Amino acid sequence: MLEIDPAFLTTSHALGELGLSHARLQDDARYPWIVLIPRVAGARELEDLPREQLTILTDEILAAGRAVRALGMQVDKLNVGALGNVTPQLHVHVVGRRIGDPAWPGPVWGHSPAQPYAPDELARTVAATKAALGL
Amino acid sequence: MLEIDPAFLTTSHALGELGLSHARLQDDARYPWIVLIPRVAGARELEDLPREQLTILTDEILAAGRAVRALGMQVDKLNVGALGNVTPQLHVHVVGRRIGDPAWPGPVWGHSPAQPYAPDELARTVAATKAALGL
Repeated sequence: MLEIDPAFLTTSHALGELGLSHARLQDDARYPWIVLIPRVAGARELEDLPREQLTILTDEILAAGRAVRALGMQVDKLNVGALGNVTPQLHVHVVGRRIGDPAWPGPVWGHSPAQPYAPDELARTVAATKAALGL
Repeated sequence: MLEIDPAFLTTSHALGELGLSHARLQDDARYPWIVLIPRVAGARELEDLPREQLTILTDEILAAGRAVRALGMQVDKLNVGALGNVTPQLHVHVVGRRIGDPAWPGPVWGHSPAQPYAPDELARTVAATKAALGL
């Protein structure tokens, strides 16, 4: 079991385990947004993964993109980012962006405080995202 | 020959052709920063590339990361991003970040106007980046 940086626990909700990554829903109702955390202890950079794991991670990024599109919010562009400046544990953001969304056309990271989902909306979105990811 | 969105021409300088991607140096002396543009006409999203090309792109992202580290500026974290909100032609940024750099710990995209390289510094950096990429 991978130890997850506690920072993820306050900003996102567990969706489940993909082949390589622990998947989480970012708790910001303004954007359909999945975070993938490869279960590789100590990994900080993509280069820390062997090629076979990078292939799996790529597949999971594509699957997260399809899931983000399946949530019913308009998605004009996917944004995929591996930053980790604040939380160094390797993770990849897959965010559905809509022309005119609050951060558009800039990046969502660091833009403004999240707007957490209302409880019923959260439960519905977690369920829909899990279904879209086959979890 | 792939047609490059003119927006890239004003913000970056050609480095050469990798196996899949046209590589460019972002013209911002504050960050070691490579932009990879896969030579795939019409591609906007990672999902527009077949798996074999995604594998090559992944290798090129790792190579760009090594090149960024080889330029002699301090790199505490790599940032890898495929956004495309402003320029939709598929491209991947590989940026070396330093704790305390102007945008730290936020993303570089949209943070502040670039500080272009001085001409001699540009020539030196282009040459060093090409060498690091084997171009």
